[in-house]
Amino acid sequence: MADKLPLPLIDHAEGQLFLTQAFNIIVEEVLCKGTDVKQKVCHEWKEPEELAELLDLELREGGEGQQKLLQRVRDVAKYSIKTSHPRFFNQQFAGVDYHALAGRFLTETLNTNLFTYEVAPVFVLMEMEVLRGLRQLVGWTEGDGIFCPGGSTSNIYAMNLARYQLFPEVKSQGLYGLPRLAIFSSPEVRMAVQRCMSDYTVERSRMIPEDLDQKIELSKSQGAVPFLVSCTSGTTVQGAFDPLDRIADVCDKHKLWMHVDAAWGGSVLFSKQHRHLMKGADRANSVAWNPHKMLVAGLQCSALLLKDTTNLLKRCHSANATYLFQQDKFYDVNLDIGDKSVQCSRKVDCLKLWLMWKAVGSSGLAERVDKAFVHVRYLVEQMKKRDGFHLLREPEFVNVCFWFIPPSLRGKEGNADYQDRLAKVAPTIKERMMKQGTMMVGYQPLGNKVNFFRVIVFSPLVSQKDLDFFLNEIERLGDDL
Amino acid sequence: MADKLPLPLIDHAEGQLFLTQAFNIIVEEVLCKGTDVKQKVCHEWKEPEELAELLDLELREGGEGQQKLLQRVRDVAKYSIKTSHPRFFNQQFAGVDYHALAGRFLTETLNTNLFTYEVAPVFVLMEMEVLRGLRQLVGWTEGDGIFCPGGSTSNIYAMNLARYQLFPEVKSQGLYGLPRLAIFSSPEVRMAVQRCMSDYTVERSRMIPEDLDQKIELSKSQGAVPFLVSCTSGTTVQGAFDPLDRIADVCDKHKLWMHVDAAWGGSVLFSKQHRHLMKGADRANSVAWNPHKMLVAGLQCSALLLKDTTNLLKRCHSANATYLFQQDKFYDVNLDIGDKSVQCSRKVDCLKLWLMWKAVGSSGLAERVDKAFVHVRYLVEQMKKRDGFHLLREPEFVNVCFWFIPPSLRGKEGNADYQDRLAKVAPTIKERMMKQGTMMVGYQPLGNKVNFFRVIVFSPLVSQKDLDFFLNEIERLGDDL
Ligand SMILES: Cc1ncc(COP(=O)(O)O)c(C=O)c1O
Ligand SMILES: Cc1ncc(COP(=O)(O)O)c(C=O)c1O
Repeated sequence: MADKLPLPLIDHAEGQLFLTQAFNIIVEEVLCKGTDVKQKVCHEWKEPEELAELLDLELREGGEGQQKLLQRVRDVAKYSIKTSHPRFFNQQFAGVDYHALAGRFLTETLNTNLFTYEVAPVFVLMEMEVLRGLRQLVGWTEGDGIFCPGGSTSNIYAMNLARYQLFPEVKSQGLYGLPRLAIFSSPEVRMAVQRCMSDYTVERSRMIPEDLDQKIELSKSQGAVPFLVSCTSGTTVQGAFDPLDRIADVCDKHKLWMHVDAAWGGSVLFSKQHRHLMKGADRANSVAWNPHKMLVAGLQCSALLLKDTTNLLKRCHSANATYLFQQDKFYDVNLDIGDKSVQCSRKVDCLKLWLMWKAVGSSGLAERVDKAFVHVRYLVEQMKKRDGFHLLREPEFVNVCFWFIPPSLRGKEGNADYQDRLAKVAPTIKERMMKQGTMMVGYQPLGNKVNFFRVIVFSPLVSQKDLDFFLNEIERLGDDL
Repeated sequence: MADKLPLPLIDHAEGQLFLTQAFNIIVEEVLCKGTDVKQKVCHEWKEPEELAELLDLELREGGEGQQKLLQRVRDVAKYSIKTSHPRFFNQQFAGVDYHALAGRFLTETLNTNLFTYEVAPVFVLMEMEVLRGLRQLVGWTEGDGIFCPGGSTSNIYAMNLARYQLFPEVKSQGLYGLPRLAIFSSPEVRMAVQRCMSDYTVERSRMIPEDLDQKIELSKSQGAVPFLVSCTSGTTVQGAFDPLDRIADVCDKHKLWMHVDAAWGGSVLFSKQHRHLMKGADRANSVAWNPHKMLVAGLQCSALLLKDTTNLLKRCHSANATYLFQQDKFYDVNLDIGDKSVQCSRKVDCLKLWLMWKAVGSSGLAERVDKAFVHVRYLVEQMKKRDGFHLLREPEFVNVCFWFIPPSLRGKEGNADYQDRLAKVAPTIKERMMKQGTMMVGYQPLGNKVNFFRVIVFSPLVSQKDLDFFLNEIERLGDDL
C-alpha cells in the first residue's frame, strides 16, 4: 500500500551530489587558494553595506536551485578571511591540520551529543581518554574534566566548582546569604576572564606571590571570603607565564582553589624544552587548556582539567534530568557524562583532537610547539637588526609585541607629540593591510602603552619566508608615516 | 637562499588526499548506510570495555600512517549511533539536511570566530540577518540577539540580562549585597533550566496565570525580588506550551522580564497552521530558540532573541578587551559583535541555518513542521487502534508520551504490583532495542508517572513506514513481557 502521509522531504542522491560539489569548492577555494601565499588573506576588503548586498543575505519564502546555492558557497568562501593562510597572524588560532579537519567533518556528520553512553558511545569513551592524555601532561594520574565551548566557559566552570566546594548549599538555595566572595587574578587577564567574574569581588594582584599573599590577607580583614586564585599560563596579549609553583604555596597557605588559565599557553606541556614554563601546574586544582588555539585543533576545543576525584563536577552541575539520566539502565550510568555540564546539548569537541593526536603523536605536537619558539626567536632577532622595530619586552612565548617606528618618528622619542603620533601608526598600517589583503596582524594599547602590534607565530604552515615577508610588509606599509 | 628554519609541518597534497578519502568514507558509512532503513541505528552494541579496546583510544608518543587513520575514521563511524537514521526517535535532534551539512563543513574549514567584522566579515553580517529573520517570526521588527552554544546558555543569558537591567551595578560590584532574587518557572522545565538557575531562588509555578500571580505576590511578601518569569514553548518531555499571552499580562502587572524558552517549540513559528501555539511570544523580552533541534540545522545552533534596542547585551557582557575591540578602527566598530557574548571565542553557528533556509525557503521549513504534526497525528491514531499503547495525554506537539502495556499486564490496572511491573517494561524493551539496534526511543519517569516512552517525530526523513515499523517493533520487543 502506498504511503498516504507526506513523503520524506530530503532527496539523498540530490543532497549527496550537492555536498560533494560543495566539498570540492571548499577544497579548492579555502584549502588550496586559502593557504597559498600567492593569494591574499583578505581577498577583497568590502564595506559592510556592499558586502551584505554582494552576499544577498536576505531570507525569503521560497527556496533556491542547487547551482545558485553552490555559488553562495563560493561567495562565502571568497569573502571570508583565510585564517589558515600562513600570513594570518591576527589571532590565537591560525593554520589548518587536515586530520583535525577530517575529524570535524565526521563530528558534524555524526551529529551527536555528549548526553549519554547510549547516544554517543564512541565519544564518551574518547573524551575520557583525551582528557586523560591532557591531564597526564599536567602531571596528574587521576582526576576529572570536561570539554567546554571555549576557554571563558572553562574558567567559569572552575569558579563554579570552587564556590560549590566551599558552599554546596548554593545549589539548592541560591547565592543569597553568602558572604562577599573574592577572586584573585592578575591585571593582564582582566580581558580574558573579566566577563566570567562579574558575580564576585575581583582583586587584581600582580602574580608576585608576596603581593598576592598580602592582598589575600587584606581582603579577609575587610570581611570578604577569598576562594579562588586564577593564574595565567600564557597571557593573551604578552604571552606571560605566572610563577605557578610559588603561587601554589600561597594557595596552600590560605587553602584557596588554584586555577590555572592555560587556555593559551597549555600547549607548552607537550614540549620537553618549554614545559618548565608551567612548572607547578600539577599543584593546581584546575587547568583550562584550549587545543583550539596553539594546537590547531579547530574551533571549538577547550578542556577543563581537574585534579578532583570526588565527582565534584557532577555534584555541582547535575540536574538529574530523568529523561536523560535514568538510573535503571542496563549499563554503567557513570558513563552518562552529560550531567557534568551546565550545558544540556553539548557538542563533540574531542574527535578532532584525538584524530590529530593519533596522526602525529605527542612527539609531532611537541615538534609544532618547538618550531613556534624557534620561529619567534628568529623573528625577534630580525626585529633587533632592523631600525623600525621596537619590542615591548622579550617574549616568553609566541606572542611578539612591538611598535613599528616609522622613519619620521625615529629619534623623536623626546617630542611632546611622540606618543600621540606613535599611537596612530598601527591603526593606519592595519587599515592599509586590510585593504590590500596581504596579511593580518592585530594591534592594541595596553595600560599606558599606546597601540602596538601583537604578532602571534605558531601555525604549522609558517616558514621563514613568511616571517621575512611580515617584516618587509610592515615596513612597506608604514615607511611613509 | 634556502630556509634555515624548520619547514612547514603540514603537507597539503597528502592532507587533502586524506581529507578526500575521509569524506568518501563519511558519505558511504554515515550518510548512505546511516540513513538506510535496511541498516541498523546501532550497528552493534558494545560494552564500554570492549568498545574502548576495539577503538584503541590510547594516545601515544608516535604518529600513525594514513591507512590506519582512515580505518579509525571508519571505526568511529561504524560504532557511533546513526542519529540521522529515520528510526532514531531518541532525542530532540534527528535526520540530516545536506545544505546545512555543507554549511557546517564550510564553517569548519573557514575556522573563524565571531569576534570582529575584520576577522569574520561574512558571518557578522550573516548572523545579524539570520537573527533578524528569526525575530521577524516572533513578531519583532527590531531588537537584538546572539547565537549561543546551546539552549541552556541562551536561557542563562536571559537571566543575566534581566538581572543586569534591574541591577547594573552587579557588573562592577558583584552579587554581594543584592536582595534575594527570585525566578519563576513551571515544574516541568526544572530539567531543562534548573542547572542555569542555581544562583537564584526558584519558585515553581504551574504556568496558570492566576497561580503565577499569587506566587509572585507571596514571594514579594517574603522579601524576595522577583525579576524573571521563564515560560516554555514546547517542554522537553511532554511538548507542552505555556499560555504566553496571559502570562505576559502577569509579567506586565509586576514589571518582570518575560523569557520564553522556545528551544524546542520555537519552530512552530514557521507554520501558519501551528504558530498559534506561541501566541503572545511577541510580548516577551527574550526568546530562546534552537534550530539545532526541530529544524535539523545540526548541533550546535541556538539563538537568543531579544526585543531590546538599547544594546543591553553588549552593556551587560562587554569586557572591552582592547586587543579585540579597538575603538580607532577604520570601520564601524558596532560590527565587532564579540563583546555581546560572555564567551571569548565564539563559533560560527549561523551559516548552516542560513544555507538551509536559502535552499528550502521559509515555506520549506514550514512544510517540515507541518509534516511532523501530520505524522504525529497518524502515530497517535494508530496507537489508539492498538491494544498495548496507552497515551499519557493528547500531544500538543511532536512528543508522544505513552506506556506500552504488554499482554500480561492488560486489564490488571487494579493489581497492587501493576505500577512496579509497568515501570520495568520500558527499560527492558529499551535494552533489547539497543542490543538489536533496530531503532532508538527514550523513556523516563515523570513525577508520579512510572517509566514511559517519549517518541519524538519530526525528522524530514521519516515516512509512514517508519511509524508503522515503530509500533510493530515496540510490540515485537515487548509482547512477551
Ligand atoms: C589567557 C586566555 N584565557 C582565556 C581565553 C578565552 O578562551 P576562549 O577564547 O576559548 O573563550 C583566552 C583567549 O581568548 C586567553 O588568551
Ligand atoms: C525546553 C528546553 N529548553 C532548553 C533546552 C536546552 O537546550 P540545549 O539542549 O540546546 O542546551 C532543551 C533541550 O534539551 C529544552 O527541551
